[in-house]
Amino acid sequence: MTRLFDQPDDFAADSAVGFVAASSRWVRPVSGGVVRSTRGADPTVAVVIGGGSGHYPAFAGLVGPGLAHGAVMGNLFASPSAHQVHAVATAAHEGRGVLLSYGNYAGDVLHFSRAQERLRAAGIDCRTVTVTDDISSAPASEHRNRRGIAGDLVVFKIAGGAAEEGMSLDDVERVAVLANERTRSLGVAFSGCTLPGAEEPLFTVPEGRMAVGLGIHGEPGIDEVDVPTATGLAELFVSSLLAEVPDGVDVAGARVVPILNGLGSVKYEELYVVYAAVDRLLSEAGLTVVSPEVGEFCTSFDMAGVSLTLLWLDEELERLWHVPCDTPAYRRGAVGGRIARDSVLLAPEDEVVIGPASEASRRAAATIGRALDDIAHMLHAQAEELGRLDRIAGDGDHGIGMQRGSRAASAAAATAIAAGAGARTALHRAGDAWADQGGGTSGAIWGEMLGALGAALGDDAVVDAAAVGGGIVRMKEAVMSYGKATVGDKTMIDAIVPFADRLRARLSAGDDLTVAWADAAETASVAARATATLTARLGRARSHGDRSLGTPDPGAISFALITHTVHHILEGDD
Amino acid sequence: MTRLFDQPDDFAADSAVGFVAASSRWVRPVSGGVVRSTRGADPTVAVVIGGGSGHYPAFAGLVGPGLAHGAVMGNLFASPSAHQVHAVATAAHEGRGVLLSYGNYAGDVLHFSRAQERLRAAGIDCRTVTVTDDISSAPASEHRNRRGIAGDLVVFKIAGGAAEEGMSLDDVERVAVLANERTRSLGVAFSGCTLPGAEEPLFTVPEGRMAVGLGIHGEPGIDEVDVPTATGLAELFVSSLLAEVPDGVDVAGARVVPILNGLGSVKYEELYVVYAAVDRLLSEAGLTVVSPEVGEFCTSFDMAGVSLTLLWLDEELERLWHVPCDTPAYRRGAVGGRIARDSVLLAPEDEVVIGPASEASRRAAATIGRALDDIAHMLHAQAEELGRLDRIAGDGDHGIGMQRGSRAASAAAATAIAAGAGARTALHRAGDAWADQGGGTSGAIWGEMLGALGAALGDDAVVDAAAVGGGIVRMKEAVMSYGKATVGDKTMIDAIVPFADRLRARLSAGDDLTVAWADAAETASVAARATATLTARLGRARSHGDRSLGTPDPGAISFALITHTVHHILEGDD
Repeated sequence: MTRLFDQPDDFAADSAVGFVAASSRWVRPVSGGVVRSTRGADPTVAVVIGGGSGHYPAFAGLVGPGLAHGAVMGNLFASPSAHQVHAVATAAHEGRGVLLSYGNYAGDVLHFSRAQERLRAAGIDCRTVTVTDDISSAPASEHRNRRGIAGDLVVFKIAGGAAEEGMSLDDVERVAVLANERTRSLGVAFSGCTLPGAEEPLFTVPEGRMAVGLGIHGEPGIDEVDVPTATGLAELFVSSLLAEVPDGVDVAGARVVPILNGLGSVKYEELYVVYAAVDRLLSEAGLTVVSPEVGEFCTSFDMAGVSLTLLWLDEELERLWHVPCDTPAYRRGAVGGRIARDSVLLAPEDEVVIGPASEASRRAAATIGRALDDIAHMLHAQAEELGRLDRIAGDGDHGIGMQRGSRAASAAAATAIAAGAGARTALHRAGDAWADQGGGTSGAIWGEMLGALGAALGDDAVVDAAAVGGGIVRMKEAVMSYGKATVGDKTMIDAIVPFADRLRARLSAGDDLTVAWADAAETASVAARATATLTARLGRARSHGDRSLGTPDPGAISFALITHTVHHILEGDD
Repeated sequence: MTRLFDQPDDFAADSAVGFVAASSRWVRPVSGGVVRSTRGADPTVAVVIGGGSGHYPAFAGLVGPGLAHGAVMGNLFASPSAHQVHAVATAAHEGRGVLLSYGNYAGDVLHFSRAQERLRAAGIDCRTVTVTDDISSAPASEHRNRRGIAGDLVVFKIAGGAAEEGMSLDDVERVAVLANERTRSLGVAFSGCTLPGAEEPLFTVPEGRMAVGLGIHGEPGIDEVDVPTATGLAELFVSSLLAEVPDGVDVAGARVVPILNGLGSVKYEELYVVYAAVDRLLSEAGLTVVSPEVGEFCTSFDMAGVSLTLLWLDEELERLWHVPCDTPAYRRGAVGGRIARDSVLLAPEDEVVIGPASEASRRAAATIGRALDDIAHMLHAQAEELGRLDRIAGDGDHGIGMQRGSRAASAAAATAIAAGAGARTALHRAGDAWADQGGGTSGAIWGEMLGALGAALGDDAVVDAAAVGGGIVRMKEAVMSYGKATVGDKTMIDAIVPFADRLRARLSAGDDLTVAWADAAETASVAARATATLTARLGRARSHGDRSLGTPDPGAISFALITHTVHHILEGDD
């Protein structure tokens, strides 16, 4: 468990301060993360990586010559925001384009994709290669949907080596795609980590049992078996990975890099015992082992887990795997002379000037501020339960993400309102803050939703029932266009679509806002109850390895809770 | 806990196989450990480090250009034997002398000192610098008695850098001594590791509490407090270390290297949160922080613990700290061109030729073989209880060490006896095997004792009562000259001295061997009971931090158990 912190909420920020203080030889802080503190003689493509905190050395520990140019540092197990990705990429850019690379998780995809749009809009050529190495997270036929685990290191290292060699963005992207296609991993776990300030571990595995295929945030595995011997585990790893050889690879005489990764508290001597058997089995299968790695490359705090990654080399990948690099946590060979980077372009903070607003819009903003404050208090109280539900189907970060995001949103709105903001500006700032601090998919979506609502309400217009109804429809549309889910996918969409539709229908029928809202909120609650029921069933089915129930996320539940909170505000205003 | 292994007894050996397979870029296996797989253009002083396994990257992970030349790899938490140290040092030697460096533990001191004698006898100039950085293990006035923890890295790195620069053995020794004098550490822990196959952790700390000053094997701490905040822990570390500034250092303007070391499951983000406060506090105290290290440099399997080390630099130490190095676990800067070391001198295994022996001596050897077999079975059954007693006062390895050592001794004797060995040869081989496999202080002492007994009995003489009595006196003298303890120090000496004296007195008075032995064994039991009583009292006093009771080791208890086992053999032979 994680025991050492000052304020649990400040953990990721405090850790980043310590990391930067200890690592000034390699990195320099910028808004949203870190970039290299040195540069080479000639500009190169910038490789920008990132994701949630809690996986050190992923991601910031891999920034330095020969590897990444910058890392975006999200909150604990939460994606950084698009704003943060944009800021780090802008600071890392050397004029030859940016490759974004990160593990394939919904929240990261949302935020990094949005940042890519912004970078391209600013004239910076930007490409993306997501890492999808975990064979347990989807069948081979859907390998693009797989999540990224310790294979991150491979894709980052190959891309970083290619950039170091001076390759163009086209070529850096090409070899990164190839590296990802040639990389496969499988992980197992014995116990989950306990996040700072949390009461319980993210997951537990019964004594003497081992979960197969667990993700790095405690996402459910695909099987549970008795703890095997070290050799038994090596056999499971090697046979599973050899059952899925990448296209175009001839196993006979193939050259592979094995990476045996400890997730946190499976320690070095234990890893080496497993590696002894892995090495033997790979050789017996006719493979040539090249430059193996045994250690901690992608952790999950002190989770007791271990994964094996295989990189199937070709000549180019082998050369790039061996390019020297020098980062806080991963070093290889001799890196050529570097120059201190005196003037890293620090990404400018958003300006905090508040534009003009009508008196009517300021009054609406005050109501919005009260609503956000109530929402933040409600989500603080519900965070534990939302996290519990999310742990059954997902990675358990929904509660803490909603808690952080709503608190940040409420604070940002309050600041803006005190400075005279209207509805649009208050909601816009609240949305940005929610996305930055809440992280993950839910942070991204709530950021978009508040922004869309604000755009609909403006800073001048009177905010009447019709305006609210229209704004909620815009919110719904923003969610639909941002994510890819539709009604029935067990996400927040299941709640917001009937909510928005019912609200508009009741308002069109002439109901007043409070009455219409109450009815619409009840339809959201229907979706929330369905999610809760499904989650409970999943929790019971999970011990049997039954994955047919899908993976409900509690977004519908928190959405319904928020609509009810807002209803109380509306009632009070009546 | 440690979950992945094939046979717990083979854990250290299996781990070494995996380590060597994964690390051939840096190391090559030799009898007893590893040496570098490359060499520089010119020969240098050889820095040979080592100790028990379970502390990776200490020790084998630190072998490579710019750091150590070889590492002796003992069993889990057990010193390697003198034979192993000698073999690794011989293989690592490049013709310019050997510096032995290791943490200051009794077992290591015994074995490495004996190896040093043998190296010097073979004409190899050899010096020793033990690491004594842990300020909690003895007061400043007795700093030479302190144990070594994460400060190991500092002394090894400085010595390795000095050798890399081509310094003479005199100078390498000088800077290593200076580095040790300038290095101070303090550690804390929240929970102990569980060794492979063990039922329970080596120690526990109550939930919400933190042990201050724990060693890396779970040796008792000096205090127990509530778990502090990260800043609170940083304050404890910094204030404790600044209260003991090395002689000749002016705090104002001093330059220090801080090393924040995780023992196993206090993970990276958590370490960085603590480091943020450490860095701030050091700066506030007017110190200049140089090249800090935050990570895992000396672990204890998955022990939840953390230590802070400060190296107080002078100009020479700062230069040597920054000498490039390249090892499996610690790399810095660019190491110059290396040549594959094609023909590492592999230390020859002991010859297994059995010399001539009389029929009478062979009969005695057969009895000795049966006794060793019974002893091994008895110690196997008692290992858990001996370990439990040792955990109260020491590091808990006595049971497992005696179990391993006696089993190896019995097997070695059986092989020798089957090949026609007499008493001397059988005991000599048994003793060497006990020292190699048992490790630690007890392994060294039992190795010496069996060897001394064998020397007294010879391979020709009839083994009668007088010969046994004389041999036991030689055993006693071997122990007395080997260690530094005397009667009353709560060690095995408390049992063997009265045992040997009583046996000789009874034999001189005309008693037959079996009767005299029974009486002598009873005197050993008196010492054993006193040790057990004292240990129980210590266990009760420990929670109050009372250290006035001394630290009894269970050596007297196992000695008494062995005398009784031998008595049964003698009775059976009557």
